[in-house]
Amino acid sequence: MIPRYSRPEMTEIWSPETKFRIWFEIEAYAGEALAAEGVIPKEAIDKVWERAGNATFDVARIDEIEREVKHDVIAFLTHLAEIVGPEARFVHQGMTSSDVLDTCFNVQLVRAADLLLADLDALLAALKRRAFEHKFTPTIGRSHGIHAEPTTFGLKLAQAYAEFDRCRARLVAAREEVATCAISGAVGTFANISPTVEAYVAEKLGLKPEPVSTQVIPRDRHAAYFATLAVIASSVERLATEVRHLQRTEVLEAEEFFSEGQKGSSAMPHKRNPVLSENLTGLARMVRSYALPAMENVALWHERDISHSSVERMIGPDATVTLDFALARLTGVVDKLLIYPERMQANLDRLGGLVHSQRVLLALTQAGVSREDAYRLVQRNAMPVWQQGGDFKELLKADGEVTRALSPETIDSLFDLDHHLAHVDTIFARVFGPEAAAR
Amino acid sequence: MIPRYSRPEMTEIWSPETKFRIWFEIEAYAGEALAAEGVIPKEAIDKVWERAGNATFDVARIDEIEREVKHDVIAFLTHLAEIVGPEARFVHQGMTSSDVLDTCFNVQLVRAADLLLADLDALLAALKRRAFEHKFTPTIGRSHGIHAEPTTFGLKLAQAYAEFDRCRARLVAAREEVATCAISGAVGTFANISPTVEAYVAEKLGLKPEPVSTQVIPRDRHAAYFATLAVIASSVERLATEVRHLQRTEVLEAEEFFSEGQKGSSAMPHKRNPVLSENLTGLARMVRSYALPAMENVALWHERDISHSSVERMIGPDATVTLDFALARLTGVVDKLLIYPERMQANLDRLGGLVHSQRVLLALTQAGVSREDAYRLVQRNAMPVWQQGGDFKELLKADGEVTRALSPETIDSLFDLDHHLAHVDTIFARVFGPEAAAR
Amino acid sequence: MIPRYSRPEMTEIWSPETKFRIWFEIEAYAGEALAAEGVIPKEAIDKVWERAGNATFDVARIDEIEREVKHDVIAFLTHLAEIVGPEARFVHQGMTSSDVLDTCFNVQLVRAADLLLADLDALLAALKRRAFEHKFTPTIGRSHGIHAEPTTFGLKLAQAYAEFDRCRARLVAAREEVATCAISGAVGTFANISPTVEAYVAEKLGLKPEPVSTQVIPRDRHAAYFATLAVIASSVERLATEVRHLQRTEVLEAEEFFSEGQKGSSAMPHKRNPVLSENLTGLARMVRSYALPAMENVALWHERDISHSSVERMIGPDATVTLDFALARLTGVVDKLLIYPERMQANLDRLGGLVHSQRVLLALTQAGVSREDAYRLVQRNAMPVWQQGGDFKELLKADGEVTRALSPETIDSLFDLDHHLAHVDTIFARVFGPEAAAR
Amino acid sequence: MIPRYSRPEMTEIWSPETKFRIWFEIEAYAGEALAAEGVIPKEAIDKVWERAGNATFDVARIDEIEREVKHDVIAFLTHLAEIVGPEARFVHQGMTSSDVLDTCFNVQLVRAADLLLADLDALLAALKRRAFEHKFTPTIGRSHGIHAEPTTFGLKLAQAYAEFDRCRARLVAAREEVATCAISGAVGTFANISPTVEAYVAEKLGLKPEPVSTQVIPRDRHAAYFATLAVIASSVERLATEVRHLQRTEVLEAEEFFSEGQKGSSAMPHKRNPVLSENLTGLARMVRSYALPAMENVALWHERDISHSSVERMIGPDATVTLDFALARLTGVVDKLLIYPERMQANLDRLGGLVHSQRVLLALTQAGVSREDAYRLVQRNAMPVWQQGGDFKELLKADGEVTRALSPETIDSLFDLDHHLAHVDTIFARVFGPEAAAR
Repeated sequence: MIPRYSRPEMTEIWSPETKFRIWFEIEAYAGEALAAEGVIPKEAIDKVWERAGNATFDVARIDEIEREVKHDVIAFLTHLAEIVGPEARFVHQGMTSSDVLDTCFNVQLVRAADLLLADLDALLAALKRRAFEHKFTPTIGRSHGIHAEPTTFGLKLAQAYAEFDRCRARLVAAREEVATCAISGAVGTFANISPTVEAYVAEKLGLKPEPVSTQVIPRDRHAAYFATLAVIASSVERLATEVRHLQRTEVLEAEEFFSEGQKGSSAMPHKRNPVLSENLTGLARMVRSYALPAMENVALWHERDISHSSVERMIGPDATVTLDFALARLTGVVDKLLIYPERMQANLDRLGGLVHSQRVLLALTQAGVSREDAYRLVQRNAMPVWQQGGDFKELLKADGEVTRALSPETIDSLFDLDHHLAHVDTIFARVFGPEAAAR
Repeated sequence: MIPRYSRPEMTEIWSPETKFRIWFEIEAYAGEALAAEGVIPKEAIDKVWERAGNATFDVARIDEIEREVKHDVIAFLTHLAEIVGPEARFVHQGMTSSDVLDTCFNVQLVRAADLLLADLDALLAALKRRAFEHKFTPTIGRSHGIHAEPTTFGLKLAQAYAEFDRCRARLVAAREEVATCAISGAVGTFANISPTVEAYVAEKLGLKPEPVSTQVIPRDRHAAYFATLAVIASSVERLATEVRHLQRTEVLEAEEFFSEGQKGSSAMPHKRNPVLSENLTGLARMVRSYALPAMENVALWHERDISHSSVERMIGPDATVTLDFALARLTGVVDKLLIYPERMQANLDRLGGLVHSQRVLLALTQAGVSREDAYRLVQRNAMPVWQQGGDFKELLKADGEVTRALSPETIDSLFDLDHHLAHVDTIFARVFGPEAAAR
Repeated sequence: MIPRYSRPEMTEIWSPETKFRIWFEIEAYAGEALAAEGVIPKEAIDKVWERAGNATFDVARIDEIEREVKHDVIAFLTHLAEIVGPEARFVHQGMTSSDVLDTCFNVQLVRAADLLLADLDALLAALKRRAFEHKFTPTIGRSHGIHAEPTTFGLKLAQAYAEFDRCRARLVAAREEVATCAISGAVGTFANISPTVEAYVAEKLGLKPEPVSTQVIPRDRHAAYFATLAVIASSVERLATEVRHLQRTEVLEAEEFFSEGQKGSSAMPHKRNPVLSENLTGLARMVRSYALPAMENVALWHERDISHSSVERMIGPDATVTLDFALARLTGVVDKLLIYPERMQANLDRLGGLVHSQRVLLALTQAGVSREDAYRLVQRNAMPVWQQGGDFKELLKADGEVTRALSPETIDSLFDLDHHLAHVDTIFARVFGPEAAAR
Repeated sequence: MIPRYSRPEMTEIWSPETKFRIWFEIEAYAGEALAAEGVIPKEAIDKVWERAGNATFDVARIDEIEREVKHDVIAFLTHLAEIVGPEARFVHQGMTSSDVLDTCFNVQLVRAADLLLADLDALLAALKRRAFEHKFTPTIGRSHGIHAEPTTFGLKLAQAYAEFDRCRARLVAAREEVATCAISGAVGTFANISPTVEAYVAEKLGLKPEPVSTQVIPRDRHAAYFATLAVIASSVERLATEVRHLQRTEVLEAEEFFSEGQKGSSAMPHKRNPVLSENLTGLARMVRSYALPAMENVALWHERDISHSSVERMIGPDATVTLDFALARLTGVVDKLLIYPERMQANLDRLGGLVHSQRVLLALTQAGVSREDAYRLVQRNAMPVWQQGGDFKELLKADGEVTRALSPETIDSLFDLDHHLAHVDTIFARVFGPEAAAR
């Protein structure tokens, strides 16, 4: 996470101020529950809210205390006592540091997930808008980087929409995974605190109680969360890679928006490079890499060790901030993408009709030619066009063995582009829902 | 995937015989749908079923053809024609190889998921049985490898149960992700085949139609699948690590079952090593590593490239076979684990009562001592015990500053083990459900 | 490692037969050293060589014994005793299983490295041959997928040569890392065996003694080895990606060799796809992924645990066999690559001279125009060409502000392609050595 | 990279101020070489040094310009022109941004490597000092976490020394890999700049010219660099894991130094946790994970794309700063480690002499008992001790079948601890050199 690839709202979630505020709320809500149970005086927790409820915690002071006691939660509680006074001793009763740390981390991950879901919604909206805009814009479909058969640019975007819609569903599930709260004491037995406190705090923070914790909330939940971000990042890479390909000099079917004043190259003033999409490719690599230490964090020793902590201090912000930035950047790329239908048509025409070869093959087979013969007939007319250019359709019409099976009119009909667009509506209905697709 | 770490049922899913059988079914069901649409003669597809429906495909022959044509699906179709005769030319009409390959791969992954779900069920059953067996077996809970507070061995296993239960839920979702079928042609436009064929084949194979494919089924689905296996493997590693720790010479609270005739060491005949659990740790590393190439597979170029294929030929079997083996091995370890409650009690007693220090701290605070003073009082009595041994309780009783706040009887009550078991029922009810826990 | 992506010589290194043969040699050489020390009778070891020196070990029999004793080295020794008779009891004196296993693994890795070095030599030879063949074949250099400035196809290959030459140097170092032998007993103290035995066996096997082992040879050596293979795989991916780009329909500057009888697509007979290079991209992902578990293997517990073993049983063959196959395949791709200089020239001409813009920019600056003005002048003439086509040179000549600084003759000279080839000899001399480059 | 896990000297390398200073030096030295070639006026470059040689570049101002021109090098050059005046137009002549960016990145990586080498030297010094201190401190060697045979604590540290010494050698090689400079223009052809400029700048900066670059310096060099850091991190994890094990309550053979005022647990005041070593385990996971995107960066498209850039902006600082912090922390842990020889002895005695079982086995074999019988004899006396405690030596003496082969005196001699220390000097000489070991 570096400023260049950060947005403020997500960064804010990971600020010390936000963290200490969440810590305070956990402690204060736990205090309310403890007071309700009669464990601590109600007056004490009222004082805590009264004196610290709107306080801004002094991060520098807490850091100073931590340097001495070498324990972050104790440092915070000491500072809280400086604000609240003697009633602070009732805070954190029967709790252990991890109750605060783990619940706070989950609150932060849930909030981060909410921002990422909003990011995905914005991306989906942009993809949908552009998909409908180019629903019937013909373009060549490619496999292996080689022209295959016609498709539409809208279908390309519909595919991306469906993919990010799956990403959204996965993220909803991943958010659910980490939306738990643990206030269960040193080894999770509630030895010195009642499960009702956990239930109360969980509800106040919009979480569910962790069914069984062991001082810590189990890290398989977090591994699933970061793995989900990694898969989303891989989908970001896919769409970014598509844009990079489309903007190649030789293809140039689309371009990233190029703002006034922007310089593509210090040396080559004419260049307009897909730098945002290339950047997204790199950011995707980063988000993907964070899944690994998250998975290695699962196997904590016995009831817990603290090896996960340094990892999470880094990947918590790094993964969410970077993915937030990437999704927003990708949305901008899609939203403002310059799309060149004429160039798509020019590329479609490039192979002299070869892209219709499968239809010819099929028609031959249906006309009674064996699969092997049909393949041979198509290939012998296709190869010259592939190698030296020419018009595939005309060659076919001049091949007696072909015309014995197919009339010139039939051959003409096989080269009809509309044929390839016949099911666009069906696919759009599958992806965007019947009404949406009917627009 | 190597024989040593493979089980036959899972391996069978990935055999060439199974693969060709699935290919055949895809082609034959597609043929039925095509015949129903009137695209090909019903008699033709009847002949296909009649002549090849119970055929065993000759893997060596198909390989031989593939060496010539360098295309696996064409090789299979050629061999199919050798079996079926001229009617074979109606097979694969309007389809592309990926229709067969991708749908087949998903069928295999779904079947693999089903086996893994059964594995998880067996593991969950073993964990539940042993958890209830040791529901109230006291043992020391540890954080940082250091004694913390008492817990029960049943709670340790309940935690593992809850974790693998989450694994199960994730795997159900991952199975759903890959349970799709695509018969959509060269670039996914259904140019030469109707979407009804896809729907028909999907239903026959227990899959759903892929809403929008691009010759291939999008690989974010598979990335999510393999990432899920990786997270499950991380949980395997966690439980295996626990067993390894418990079997340490100095701890020895549990041991892997040691069969007659087994030799632990060629050099040291007394040794009984947790080799199964260590092995599981290594296998977990492998399954985890396979998630990465699966994620890198997502960003295929344009409508598709074939870089994913070599990866999937390897990780398809490798990840599922290895995880299947690991889960079965882990179930065996849990099922037959030798558990030593006396040793657990001996370890519990080891620290001279220090494990009750938090309760003392809490009692002091509640008796009006400030948090800082209470911490100081506890620490000054705890440290000598920690360093030279001794009886923490007696030291406390001899400390005037302590007894000013707590009576000897109160101090005694703070050392009561039952206190730590008070919420075991609650936690079991959360994990296993109220009735189960009530047993 | 699957047969499809395996070559026999590398696979052979990992066969049980080879492994048992190496085990035998370690035991037998150790026996010779022990006999020389007078620890065991010379006659005994003579008998061992006599009866088992040319024996083929019965893998099935050893497996059978292992199923009973659950220990592979003991199983082997038991089988050896079946062959050798009572003298076999002198074998393995004072040794521990890891002495045999780890030394054997290193022998296998060294042999694998030797094959991989030979692979690299073949690849380097192919690259060099093709580089010189196209030393002065002009082609457009691209950054961001966008045309930049001219280069030569030979320079592209020279870059690849230099990269794989670095790979070779790294592999030599990695081979050295694992070329060690340990015969040091249960915890590496030589408690029951003299260091002279280790020295003797090491020398016989072409290894160096491991300075300090702990039952096992430390796994940082192996991590460095597999990380090196992973970096080499990344370079394989780079060159494969280049070929994939060059073969794109719109670029088509080179193509993988297309053999007679090969079918590119079951549906589209004209297609010629860069499937070998795409396959290499996938294989590179696999080899890269194996580095991770190798690194996780380093942190064995105390003097050793056996978690590394399952990992190495898999990645030992998987990584080396896959990389061996990939390097050989890449060599074939380079060796037979169809290269199309005319198409390179056509692509070079595509941008109407824009690729010379930097030289114009520079000439303007040197003629006294400020950097900012020069950039502006170039960009205003470049942009129309970029957008609608046209001739950049003519536009410049018609721009009064430009011609005030540069004469038409000067402008012409800036569009000279030879200018870009002036340092090709220098670079070739750097990469291939002065004499080689002078050819 | 977060402040908590950062040290100032390494962080400074990655500051914008340092970066711009290096950029300036590259541009200024290139200017000197260009002036020497007569390409630009000597006076111009003199002015550049005069006016900007000691300037502090205004990072905020450069950022401001970059927001407009969206190009970092152009922003810097524009700011440089603000400082230098019109002569600035001679700067960057014939160069491309990557010439500056890539050479700068390598300068930073080289400086980072120098700090890391110093870190390793400090760690090696600490390891050596403690190794000699405990050269003959007996301790139990463990395999699989189970007691094996005696070793010494000095040998454990000697192993770590040898391992980090290998790390050092690898890092020297990795530093060499990235110590290159490229000033070769838009596609590496030196089209507008002479190779002599590159040679001059390289020498000034302590680098070597990159033999063949393609606008960028090839990223396999950087992949090798970051992979090397990842392997070093894995060795950090190994030693940290050892300390964590040694500090376990049940083992407690060593402890991290515990400073006055430090609180181990907010809830359990007696606890002294190996938190530094656990933290190192987590940091190792992070450094390891950064190797992956570095490897994915290798396959840039054609002559270059910019996907590597975002990755390197993150992992450049993240990996080096984190490893620097980790090595320094580990050095502190080793340097101040509390080592408890009495406890080591107590653990050694724990198994009633079983750790000598291999010697007994060996002695039996040498006395003519078959390997199988010897194993059986040892195991039948070892198992009761393992299970119920007792004295292995006395049991052996009471076993008639044993005493038929071995006299009581011989049995006594097999339990002599010194036997295991006989080769400590040899191993120390191998690791630390003959003179060092002789101390």
